[in-house]
Amino acid sequence: MFFKVKTTEEVLDLIRRFKAVGEETIPLADSFGRVLSRDVISPEDLPGFLRSSMDGYALKAKETFGASESLPALLEVIGEVAMGAVPTVTLREGTAVKISTGGMLPEGSDAVVMIEHCHLVDETTLEVARAVSPQENVIRPGDDLVRGATVLRRGWTLRPQDVGVMAGLGSTEVHVFRRPRVAIISTGDEVIPMDQKPKPGQVRDINTYTLKAFCERIGADPVVTGLCGDDFERLRATVAGGLAEADTVWISGGSSVGVRDLTVKVLESFEDMEILVHGISISPGKPTILARIGSKGVFGLPGHTASAMVVAEVFLAPFVSTLGGKTPHLAEGRSSVMATLSRNVESTSGREDYIRVKLVRNGDEWTAEPLFGKSGLISTLVDADGLVRVGRNVEGLYQGDMVKVILF
Amino acid sequence: MFFKVKTTEEVLDLIRRFKAVGEETIPLADSFGRVLSRDVISPEDLPGFLRSSMDGYALKAKETFGASESLPALLEVIGEVAMGAVPTVTLREGTAVKISTGGMLPEGSDAVVMIEHCHLVDETTLEVARAVSPQENVIRPGDDLVRGATVLRRGWTLRPQDVGVMAGLGSTEVHVFRRPRVAIISTGDEVIPMDQKPKPGQVRDINTYTLKAFCERIGADPVVTGLCGDDFERLRATVAGGLAEADTVWISGGSSVGVRDLTVKVLESFEDMEILVHGISISPGKPTILARIGSKGVFGLPGHTASAMVVAEVFLAPFVSTLGGKTPHLAEGRSSVMATLSRNVESTSGREDYIRVKLVRNGDEWTAEPLFGKSGLISTLVDADGLVRVGRNVEGLYQGDMVKVILF
Repeated sequence: MFFKVKTTEEVLDLIRRFKAVGEETIPLADSFGRVLSRDVISPEDLPGFLRSSMDGYALKAKETFGASESLPALLEVIGEVAMGAVPTVTLREGTAVKISTGGMLPEGSDAVVMIEHCHLVDETTLEVARAVSPQENVIRPGDDLVRGATVLRRGWTLRPQDVGVMAGLGSTEVHVFRRPRVAIISTGDEVIPMDQKPKPGQVRDINTYTLKAFCERIGADPVVTGLCGDDFERLRATVAGGLAEADTVWISGGSSVGVRDLTVKVLESFEDMEILVHGISISPGKPTILARIGSKGVFGLPGHTASAMVVAEVFLAPFVSTLGGKTPHLAEGRSSVMATLSRNVESTSGREDYIRVKLVRNGDEWTAEPLFGKSGLISTLVDADGLVRVGRNVEGLYQGDMVKVILF
Repeated sequence: MFFKVKTTEEVLDLIRRFKAVGEETIPLADSFGRVLSRDVISPEDLPGFLRSSMDGYALKAKETFGASESLPALLEVIGEVAMGAVPTVTLREGTAVKISTGGMLPEGSDAVVMIEHCHLVDETTLEVARAVSPQENVIRPGDDLVRGATVLRRGWTLRPQDVGVMAGLGSTEVHVFRRPRVAIISTGDEVIPMDQKPKPGQVRDINTYTLKAFCERIGADPVVTGLCGDDFERLRATVAGGLAEADTVWISGGSSVGVRDLTVKVLESFEDMEILVHGISISPGKPTILARIGSKGVFGLPGHTASAMVVAEVFLAPFVSTLGGKTPHLAEGRSSVMATLSRNVESTSGREDYIRVKLVRNGDEWTAEPLFGKSGLISTLVDADGLVRVGRNVEGLYQGDMVKVILF
């Protein structure tokens, strides 16, 4: 079977066709960072009453018309509004009532004059040095949110302020998409558990921990299935278990051709299976596999952690967003900075390259130093501050070029 | 007592003087996003053995010298390296051993030729069409990390790849700073629990939920103490409880002068107390209080959620970073985008202003539309995509200005 290597755009297009996972109802207090599965509609007017937005005196606006520093309006103070209660006083002509920010306006008043523009001559005599208009310094019912208005939309990722506004509306529970569950499988006969001492020829499992933490970063729930040697039956059983438990399965294998072939053979042994991607024109990350088994996506990732991380940034993050029902949002993307490239970078035309760089501050500017090293080194991962993308139709970048560094 | 309103820089300077909380030891698997309290030193060389970085054949490099497509070197294949095991074969002159990426080089070999440059004539006869140098396509012990090298520094926030590298080193546990605990107190006689129906004059508690979610965003552990009316004894007892339980206390009060005065009175009633900040030349957020009680910082925040959120972004995030022992990192800052301002914005000189804006896409560019609205509206919070800072010595911004929008 012949597979054409796909471009980044083609793969992203395939990824976006997967369906979002189901929804669940959770307490609002636990909803930070979760994704709304339904629009949030305001069940009531907010505020629910005529409310002062300043510290001052509630009064009838027309009684201040023409008032100034030199000719203040004189009013009688007949009481004070207690916070959280319906005022017990009613304004008569020529009177004012002391009020705090958030207080409810007493009957008969239609505006608030700020305390800064008032002078208390004696306990009950108030000079107002400025005219206020009706509704000035007050918030009317529905000024903030009108009953029936759409406050937040399905697909929105809840920020602290969104959680706060929903609390203001009394939404004790919220409908959100489940966090996508990701089964993480690490293969390779040479890979041993992290808490063991490697014998010659063996290495500790790195990818399970990297991918688990990556899931946490992007709002997925990792399900660690443990290590799996390069054995057809064991790998098949582990993938089957992952499919039963999770919404997607990520197999990070050795980087050898043999292990990749084994992964494909295992995937092909499932019913209702389709290999969607077998190779991407991206470096690092070319030997990436994406299959559909039933409605679930299964990724075969490169074994080198550095390669797997590039694939994670470029493909797994948008894949989890799709599963999680997220509408793309500005703040969701990774931060980036512009930097000057410290040396030439070659790239093969027809392939998208991601170069790991270290950022060095250079006065107010940044210099991006490409990190080179033999394929498979993990130290470049801790040294790198970010990635520079070299587009498919670009043959390389030059020393001195301004480049966008995707921080990670 | 007279308090001079402080500038943002003065307040940040005071904030940075607080000490980091203590450390704890946690399983590596749970360490994503945590802050290292000690340097991580490599306990061993990585890799621990001479390792192939390619699929191919292990051989003696010198036996390929001069080899080319037209004049390939001829070698006898005498076996294959099993993954994860010490090779059982030793190379004699004129021989090669098949090896996969990550395999251990057999004795007698010093390089790997990539499979792409080989042709198997029959089961044991290999043509090598390219010369390789000694050490080519191999990773030597310590090439990646040398025993004793500093891998990650104290104060570093662990990224997925950092967790992976520590797994590679066998660090099953990791020393990190505790997550700072934040006691959140919401005051105000008019504020009722979120799950109750407000009577006229009452509003639901918004700030507790906003601040709790904000804590989660910045890596702090919120301790919600519940609502507290505007009563000296009750507020004092709640603050005392917060100080006992948490590393810092955040009181979000009503925005009235009376409530602010009450907060100050309560703070002043503690021993070993110092009011560090009473008013900041920032808008919104001016009526912010910062006190030191013992070694702990106590914030009095504006009651309006929008104002409290600006104070949170500008001051509480760096404060928690300081408590959490974080070394500032590039990727830690909030993302931002450049945008064209849609209209003039006035600002008072001598005061730093934060304008809430909505971002509207305009082809490839962004337009930032300032959101105005009466103080105290919460709908502007959900409508806003970010903040635009207007510096202290700037009198305003003009329509068409390019501005940096801090996304939030």
